[in-house]
Amino acid sequence: MSLILDEQFLSGFVTQSELDAYTGRLAAARERLHTPDGQPKGWRTLPCDTGEELLSAVETAARTIREEADILLVIGIGGSYLGAKAALDFLPGANGPEVLFLGNDMSPSHLSEVLSRCEGREIAVNVISKSGSTTEPAIAFRLVLELMQRRYGSEAARRIWCTTDPASGILRQMCEEEGWGRFEIPRDVGGRFSVLTPVGLLPIAAAGHDIRALMEGARTAQRLYDEPDHDLLLNPAYRYAAIQDILSRKGKSVELFGAYEPFASGLSLWLIQLYGESCGKDGKGLFPASAQFSTDLHSLGQYIQEGQRILCETVLDFADTGCGLTVPVLGSDHDGLGYLEGRSLGEINRIALMATAEAHWNGGVPVTLVTAPRRDAQTLGELFYFFELSCAVSGYLLGINPFDQPGVEQYKRNMFRLLGKPGYTGTEAK
Amino acid sequence: MSLILDEQFLSGFVTQSELDAYTGRLAAARERLHTPDGQPKGWRTLPCDTGEELLSAVETAARTIREEADILLVIGIGGSYLGAKAALDFLPGANGPEVLFLGNDMSPSHLSEVLSRCEGREIAVNVISKSGSTTEPAIAFRLVLELMQRRYGSEAARRIWCTTDPASGILRQMCEEEGWGRFEIPRDVGGRFSVLTPVGLLPIAAAGHDIRALMEGARTAQRLYDEPDHDLLLNPAYRYAAIQDILSRKGKSVELFGAYEPFASGLSLWLIQLYGESCGKDGKGLFPASAQFSTDLHSLGQYIQEGQRILCETVLDFADTGCGLTVPVLGSDHDGLGYLEGRSLGEINRIALMATAEAHWNGGVPVTLVTAPRRDAQTLGELFYFFELSCAVSGYLLGINPFDQPGVEQYKRNMFRLLGKPGYTGTEAK
Repeated sequence: MSLILDEQFLSGFVTQSELDAYTGRLAAARERLHTPDGQPKGWRTLPCDTGEELLSAVETAARTIREEADILLVIGIGGSYLGAKAALDFLPGANGPEVLFLGNDMSPSHLSEVLSRCEGREIAVNVISKSGSTTEPAIAFRLVLELMQRRYGSEAARRIWCTTDPASGILRQMCEEEGWGRFEIPRDVGGRFSVLTPVGLLPIAAAGHDIRALMEGARTAQRLYDEPDHDLLLNPAYRYAAIQDILSRKGKSVELFGAYEPFASGLSLWLIQLYGESCGKDGKGLFPASAQFSTDLHSLGQYIQEGQRILCETVLDFADTGCGLTVPVLGSDHDGLGYLEGRSLGEINRIALMATAEAHWNGGVPVTLVTAPRRDAQTLGELFYFFELSCAVSGYLLGINPFDQPGVEQYKRNMFRLLGKPGYTGTEAK
Repeated sequence: MSLILDEQFLSGFVTQSELDAYTGRLAAARERLHTPDGQPKGWRTLPCDTGEELLSAVETAARTIREEADILLVIGIGGSYLGAKAALDFLPGANGPEVLFLGNDMSPSHLSEVLSRCEGREIAVNVISKSGSTTEPAIAFRLVLELMQRRYGSEAARRIWCTTDPASGILRQMCEEEGWGRFEIPRDVGGRFSVLTPVGLLPIAAAGHDIRALMEGARTAQRLYDEPDHDLLLNPAYRYAAIQDILSRKGKSVELFGAYEPFASGLSLWLIQLYGESCGKDGKGLFPASAQFSTDLHSLGQYIQEGQRILCETVLDFADTGCGLTVPVLGSDHDGLGYLEGRSLGEINRIALMATAEAHWNGGVPVTLVTAPRRDAQTLGELFYFFELSCAVSGYLLGINPFDQPGVEQYKRNMFRLLGKPGYTGTEAK
C-alpha cells in the first residue's frame, strides 16, 4: 500500500467501535458507486481504461507545443484548470513552456497582465470547456483569439488545442470550423474528476511531465482502493471517508487541508473544489479550507490552537521530497541554531509537522495524517484517485449526490439578468 | 469618507435595532482601545506619528537596494512578511528588484528553489524578526548568509538590512557586530499590526512603490475611523465590527474574505492572520478563510450556495481598477458573447460581484461589501488601517485580548522537544 493513514492524532475523537459501525454503510456506498445510474462515474475506471492511443496523441500534441511555444495559455475554470495547476505545482523538473492559467476570472487587471506577458514570446493555447459557453473562459478565449489572429494570421489555428465535449457545444463547433487540434472530455466524467483526462493530461505533458507515470500511479490506486470489495474499513480511501463522517457528526464543520510543502498548495485548491462541490449541498458537508505550513502557524495557527473548536485537519506528509538541503555550519552560534547544524531540512520539516499535529490534537483539533512516499508523478496520480474515490464515498455517507453541483448555476442566472443576456431579462433569479 | 460599507446583502441577517444595541459596547471598546494598559497598541497612532526622518531613511535604503540588486530576499514569517506581500500583490507598477519571500517555512524544496533563482543575479537581503530566534527565518537566514559570504565576501554586509527590536534580541546583536543596515520595529506594535512600520515599508519601497501615499491613506483612515468619539455606529470600522459580532452570535462561524481581483489575494492572507491571531482564542472568533472570485465560484461556490449555513462573507469591491480592457468585437457570434461586445471587463466583473452577492444572500449567506475607490497605495493604506482598527474592536466585543497570541507557542515547544533543543527535552509540552 502506498499511501498511509496515520491516525495517532485522532485518538479520543474517533474510536474503533465508531469505525466498526460504518461497515455496512461503507458497503452500501461502494454498491451505489459501482451501480450505473446515469451519474458521471466514469472517473472510477478511467486509470485502467485509458489506452495507449490517447496517451500517444496527448504526448504528440504536447511535443508540438513544447517545440513551438514559450508560453502555453491554458484557458479554463474550476475543474478545467485546478488539476493541471495542482500537478504543475507538485511535480519538479518542468522543462516545457511557461504555463499561464486564465479564463478562471473576469478581472481586467489579471487578463491584461497575462496578455502583456505574451509580448515577444511564442504562444500556444489550450482552451478547456465542455460547452464553450461559460462566461469566464469564453471572454478570455475571445481576447486570446484576437491576439493569436493578429500575431499569427492563418497560422494561428496550428497553435490552438481545444479540450471539449465529444459531440456537442459551441466550442466543439468552433473547433471543427477552424481546424484547431481537439481532445475530448468523456461525457461520464465531471469537471472536478477530470484531471486524468486530456483536461489535465495535455497541460501536464506540455509542461514536460511524465503522464504515463501519473496514470500508472492512478492505476495502482484504482486496484488498491476501488477493486477490493471486502474489509472496507481497512481500505484507506473508505476509512478516511468514515473518519470525516464521524468528525462531522460530532460537530466539526471545517476541514483544513494542510501540507508542509508549498508544492502541495495547488493540490489543496484542487481538494477544496473536489470536496466543496461534491459534499457542500443540502446544508451539509465540512467547509473545505487550506493551510500552508509551517507558514500559516504564524497566521491561522493561533485560531487552530484556541479558536472555535469546529476544525478538523488533514495533513499531507511526504516521506521523501528528494531534496538534500541541510542547515549550514556557521563559525559561531550567534543565532542559537547550533543544535541543528548539519541536520537535514527535510527531517526538521517533518518534525515540525509531527510537533504541530500533536499541539493541534492537544488543543482539540483531530488531525489525520496522509503520508505519501515521494514527490513524483506516480504518487500524485495515486493521491488524485485516492481523494476522488474517498470524496465520492463521503458524499454517499452524507446522503447526497456527490456528482452534481446545482448551486453553481445561481450566480450565473443573476449575472446574465444583470448583464442583459438575451433570454435572462426576467425575474427568474429572485 | 473613502471606504463604503454596502449592507444591502445583510438584509434579514442584521437589523437596525440589533445594531443600535451596540452603541454602548462600541463606546466601551473604543475606551479600552484608547486606554494605555501595556498592550501593544502603538499601531493606532502610527500613521500620524511616523515622521519624515523614518520615511527618508527607508527610501534611502530602498534606493540602494534598487540600484544594487536584481533580487531582494525578504526573510520573515507571519506579520513579518504578510503585509509587504499584500502590498506587492496589490500595487501596480513595481519597477524594483524581484522580491522573493522566504523564511516563512522550513520546506527544503521551497528554500532550494529560492536559492537557485539567485544564481547569476545580484542579491540584497532584508531579514525581519523581532528576536531573530524564530526557527523558520533563522534557518533561512543561515542559508542566505552562507550564500552572501561566498558571493560577496566582506562586501556582503553592505547588502543586508535587518528590521528588528530597538534594543534586544539575537538579530539586533548580530546586526551591530556585522555592521548591517538596521531598522527598528516599535516595541508597542505587534507583528500582525506592523505593515506600516519598516517591516512593511522597506520591502514595499524597494519594490518601487510610493510609501508616502500609503502612509497618507493610513493617516486619512486614522482621522476618519479612530479619532471621532461619537456616532460610532456610523463609523464604518466600528460598524463592521458590530456586524461581524451580530453574525457570530447568530451562529455564523466562518468569515470568508473574498475579492474579484487576484491583486487582492495577498490582502486576504493578511486579513486571515489579522483576524485569526487577534480573535481566535478562548474558543471564540469567526474562522477566517479566503476566496478568489469569480474563480472560486467554480470551486467553493457550490458550498457557499448550499453547504452548511455557517458562512458569512466580506467582499472587497473596487470602484475603479484603472484597467480599460473591453470584450473584443469578433466577426461572428459563434461563442454567444455578442451581447457583451465592446463592454468593459471592469464593469462586467463588478456585475458578477453584485450578482454573486445576491445569489449568496438568497442562499443564506450574509455578505458585507467593502467598496474601495481605487487600486493604489493610498487606498491600500486606508484598507490596512481600517481592518486593523475594526479587528481590534472585534476582539473587545468578543471579550478577548486582541493583541496577544498565546496559541502560537505550543507547536514550537513540541518542536523544540522533538528536535532536542537544549532546555526543551522535558515533557512540558504534553
